[in-house]
Amino acid sequence: MTSHPDIPTSARLTLVLGGARSGKSRHAEALVQAHPAPWLYIATAQAFDDEMRARIALHRERRPEGWITVDAPLDLAGAIRKAEPGRPMLVDCLTLWLTNVMLAERDVPAAVNELEEACAAAAGPLVLVSNEVGLGIVPDNALARRFRDHAGILHQRLAARADRVLLIVAGLPLTVK
Amino acid sequence: MTSHPDIPTSARLTLVLGGARSGKSRHAEALVQAHPAPWLYIATAQAFDDEMRARIALHRERRPEGWITVDAPLDLAGAIRKAEPGRPMLVDCLTLWLTNVMLAERDVPAAVNELEEACAAAAGPLVLVSNEVGLGIVPDNALARRFRDHAGILHQRLAARADRVLLIVAGLPLTVK
Amino acid sequence: MTSHPDIPTSARLTLVLGGARSGKSRHAEALVQAHPAPWLYIATAQAFDDEMRARIALHRERRPEGWITVDAPLDLAGAIRKAEPGRPMLVDCLTLWLTNVMLAERDVPAAVNELEEACAAAAGPLVLVSNEVGLGIVPDNALARRFRDHAGILHQRLAARADRVLLIVAGLPLTVK
Repeated sequence: MTSHPDIPTSARLTLVLGGARSGKSRHAEALVQAHPAPWLYIATAQAFDDEMRARIALHRERRPEGWITVDAPLDLAGAIRKAEPGRPMLVDCLTLWLTNVMLAERDVPAAVNELEEACAAAAGPLVLVSNEVGLGIVPDNALARRFRDHAGILHQRLAARADRVLLIVAGLPLTVK
Repeated sequence: MTSHPDIPTSARLTLVLGGARSGKSRHAEALVQAHPAPWLYIATAQAFDDEMRARIALHRERRPEGWITVDAPLDLAGAIRKAEPGRPMLVDCLTLWLTNVMLAERDVPAAVNELEEACAAAAGPLVLVSNEVGLGIVPDNALARRFRDHAGILHQRLAARADRVLLIVAGLPLTVK
Repeated sequence: MTSHPDIPTSARLTLVLGGARSGKSRHAEALVQAHPAPWLYIATAQAFDDEMRARIALHRERRPEGWITVDAPLDLAGAIRKAEPGRPMLVDCLTLWLTNVMLAERDVPAAVNELEEACAAAAGPLVLVSNEVGLGIVPDNALARRFRDHAGILHQRLAARADRVLLIVAGLPLTVK
């Protein structure tokens, strides 16, 4: 593993936001890999169809040796709490987790509260990846609007807790905090 | 009202852009509340359905004592011109106003010109909130595309006039100008 | 042509990203016009309908004397390679080119590779304009999702090669790189 001299390693909690195919996962992985291995990869993806299966496989293939993968499509807070203190962790991604919570008809505000508490209590370094989805035209269907609202509030809550917030544009980080 | 030592109070005209649930209203309110009360809240929302009514109620509840609310779904320029000079003002939000103008089949470029002139002539401090809607995929329907175009041009025009332009991401401001 | 004292002219390759009607074309034109005329305008637009024809006409009208327009809806790499070395060039825009490549059922990764090589080999100054389309809700239809993916990867590849990457918001540049 090469070192990343330009990536600060001091942040306990980092939120990495970005659009579709913005390079946010890759950037977040580099942030985690700036710490000593092994690294914990907390995956929230659930493969409902071939398109998702292909994306998950691509993400797994790209990760080098040193990663331990844990699946947490719903109990993300639990997975964060169970991690060994000080183990560098990546959560990829919050918007898929939120989708899973909504599809399972769980109580979203309660789940967000629980996640926020787990992130606040984590020793870190913990890097959270999420899709920014609120900068397009208002969606036609009510479910998409509710998803957008929940995602926006989730991001605000975690950004307030984070030491570092990045918006990835074309693979490059804009520092928001 | 607590003071906001990290928020500069010198800007006459501020444009606060952001996505859905990005925290742009809350940030804009704090910018206005950094000035002495009372503050003028110019609301452009029209409640056509329960979803809108709930959003409007939520926004009103969150505002502390010291706010005077004026409704201006269409004659936004008039509401700005009528305000007492030097009274801190918040307009929330421009995209709802633009929606109203389009639904009422008014002349959009003429309305934008009139709004731009009223903002340019205002003594300030005047804070304008608007949704950034142009960073998603091209919408299927022509009305949404026209809305996006009008919103983009409106933002460019007001940003050129503004002393300060912020893009709110996850509740945090990116300084654009 | 007036000079633009605040626009650095040293960048060989610049990527200008922005949303719909964000002012990205206008900003990119100013970057190119900071160099001595004549300037090469490489247009990728194809007019399939009246809406497109009106947009193309508007863009052409706004360009002052000194611009030489070349159409390259598909062979964009070829147009860049054929340009006289050192001639200031503007490509407007990459997302329209990508649309054309997809509609013509060409091999997208091969076309992206060829474009990347042509940009890397260009003497410059070369300014590339493209729409950021990945920051909204996931589109319903698979073609739009594929387009978004291709656009995101294209932007990452060119941003990695670029000396300067800007995100235009309300007509104003945020420096990403």
